[in-house]
Amino acid sequence: MRARSAVRVGVIGGGQLARMMIPAAVELGVELRVFAEAEGMSAALAATHVGDYADAGQLLEFARGVDVVTFDHEHVPQDVLRTVVDAGIAVHPGPDALRYAQDKLRMRERLSELGLPVPDWAAVRTPGELDDFIAAHGGAAVVKTPRGGYDGKGVRVVRGAAEVAEWFATVAEGGGDGALLAEELVDFRRELAQQVARRPSGEIAVWPVVETVQRGGVCSEVIAPAPHSAGRLADVAAQIAVQIAEGLGVTGMLAVELFETTDDRLLVNELAMRPHNSGHWSMDGATTGQFEQHLRAVLDLPLGGTGSLEPWAVMVNVLGGPAEGTLEDRYAEAFAEHPTVKMHNYGKTPRPGRKVGHVTALGAELDDVVYEARAAAAVFQD
Amino acid sequence: MRARSAVRVGVIGGGQLARMMIPAAVELGVELRVFAEAEGMSAALAATHVGDYADAGQLLEFARGVDVVTFDHEHVPQDVLRTVVDAGIAVHPGPDALRYAQDKLRMRERLSELGLPVPDWAAVRTPGELDDFIAAHGGAAVVKTPRGGYDGKGVRVVRGAAEVAEWFATVAEGGGDGALLAEELVDFRRELAQQVARRPSGEIAVWPVVETVQRGGVCSEVIAPAPHSAGRLADVAAQIAVQIAEGLGVTGMLAVELFETTDDRLLVNELAMRPHNSGHWSMDGATTGQFEQHLRAVLDLPLGGTGSLEPWAVMVNVLGGPAEGTLEDRYAEAFAEHPTVKMHNYGKTPRPGRKVGHVTALGAELDDVVYEARAAAAVFQD
Repeated sequence: MRARSAVRVGVIGGGQLARMMIPAAVELGVELRVFAEAEGMSAALAATHVGDYADAGQLLEFARGVDVVTFDHEHVPQDVLRTVVDAGIAVHPGPDALRYAQDKLRMRERLSELGLPVPDWAAVRTPGELDDFIAAHGGAAVVKTPRGGYDGKGVRVVRGAAEVAEWFATVAEGGGDGALLAEELVDFRRELAQQVARRPSGEIAVWPVVETVQRGGVCSEVIAPAPHSAGRLADVAAQIAVQIAEGLGVTGMLAVELFETTDDRLLVNELAMRPHNSGHWSMDGATTGQFEQHLRAVLDLPLGGTGSLEPWAVMVNVLGGPAEGTLEDRYAEAFAEHPTVKMHNYGKTPRPGRKVGHVTALGAELDDVVYEARAAAAVFQD
Repeated sequence: MRARSAVRVGVIGGGQLARMMIPAAVELGVELRVFAEAEGMSAALAATHVGDYADAGQLLEFARGVDVVTFDHEHVPQDVLRTVVDAGIAVHPGPDALRYAQDKLRMRERLSELGLPVPDWAAVRTPGELDDFIAAHGGAAVVKTPRGGYDGKGVRVVRGAAEVAEWFATVAEGGGDGALLAEELVDFRRELAQQVARRPSGEIAVWPVVETVQRGGVCSEVIAPAPHSAGRLADVAAQIAVQIAEGLGVTGMLAVELFETTDDRLLVNELAMRPHNSGHWSMDGATTGQFEQHLRAVLDLPLGGTGSLEPWAVMVNVLGGPAEGTLEDRYAEAFAEHPTVKMHNYGKTPRPGRKVGHVTALGAELDDVVYEARAAAAVFQD
């Protein structure tokens, strides 16, 4: 059952990113329709279709019911996306932009063409080529499968090609042009992320650059803004992200993950063309959160302000959740001890390592805010 | 289709108050189930039942599927509520509290018993009694039907009983004990509202007192906190609301509408035992908004912080909306000119005088914030 709405946004994928678009859609009076992969997913409340997003027929049927199609993830095949675009339906980000988020080799090629700062990289087609790259880069490399990786999957630090022998076999069979991506092992001080949103008509909104802390390849904590980032660092990060958004024709949210190197450079690590874990702080900590901004952007509406509501925001992921029971079982404790922390529960069954929620704390003193957010998140972990 | 949730809250009524509980429920991982009066209502996204809330059988069936029942409005008959309570289902606020919100005569009696400051009042059973009351109160009175009024309906300022002759006929037939409520016409400087939330187990959370501006009996604007309220005024307003919440056994949100008299007293005007228009600012302007707090309170979970995020918040209702088209048609203009204003669209068809949305602006300078909120709301009106 649906209320009247003049505006419909379709989201491919029923995960927590689609879920977190629901509150923004409700407030804006936008009808959100989710194409979910299965029943009972995180965004089930807004799911109108359950099916296979790789099936062009199913996706087209879904897309015909909305004004614009956008995404919870980057996995929809290019040919399926093009079928939707060819039917005259708006898709944001469009397939031309999205292929750079889908294929890390193309992304590296394109960013290099645009003159953006990236780690040394090469497309390696054979173990021999990889061993040569390793030898030329201090005896180690980061190897990535160009497609399908996320949260650290499909990424490995190696000292010899033999460690990823099976990956060569896999890419030779299928995806991309049969190559793996090899990158130098960057000597970095910390990781940062820069969120921007871009409308089809060109307007761009920029949030403060944030510091991200990864654990086991998964984002565990975000500090907004990144400490000691005011001035040059913030400017350069913003410039890089704006250049990528424009150069790649990104529409909607763009997250640029960056390395801050020990010699004070910023290098582009990964891109996500959708709301991203590193931007969750903005839901509570900025005038406009990334989920609202994503809806505005894909609808080509003027973007909202990106200022911070408090000097500091710290987001901590709830990874895994309690060994037994649910997050809700811990609410009495968490809420009593941390009355100012904002809870976000993805409605997923707790399972080791799974992102099941996050918390955000705001405040004027960074140490207090970090403590508060970590302590609140810890209540949900065993 | 629903995601897994261990916690289910049922809401009677499908209006915009139920709708604005949806974002809070999504973030908390609470499954919200709405019992709507009709298809396509404001809260349709969460509607699981459409029916008649005055039908005990229908309501009981709905209530059996949730952990706690709460409300979008105060119109559910007492006998229906008692059927649900007798079935062992939690109802917050419960019928014992709710009857004071349902019947203004009982409310006045009870507040007077508790020693709370109220305007002079009397239950008038005949035109003669009303004329006596008017004569004793400077030649005028406010007359209210004890039941069923809202947004200025069922409230009239009169100088003679003849002006409400038909009301005497109506109450004699039906509701209450056959009396109307007569109140002195209070000489007030301004109207205020005090929001508090109370858990069944007793904890109470108090927001800053706000100033409300009414137009034609309908709330049009709210300033939070009320200007010049720091100190005694804020303390007294909070004390009154806490005393009412405890004295009447209110659970969930309570809004106390107050007159600030020209001789510096606070008098209780009306009560609402649910989220209320005068508390909408808290969604964007406070650590915990009233809809999230209401869910916490009715679930008997520890309450969230009620501090303000910026020195001032100003909420302006969108009443009626554009003469033609929808609110969404004005988004390009509103968002471009007011990028920091938060939009809340209730998904209702615009109609003269109808509450179809509201906007909230935050900031450090009250004049700027008022201007910003009024100007943004004005974009949606002809």
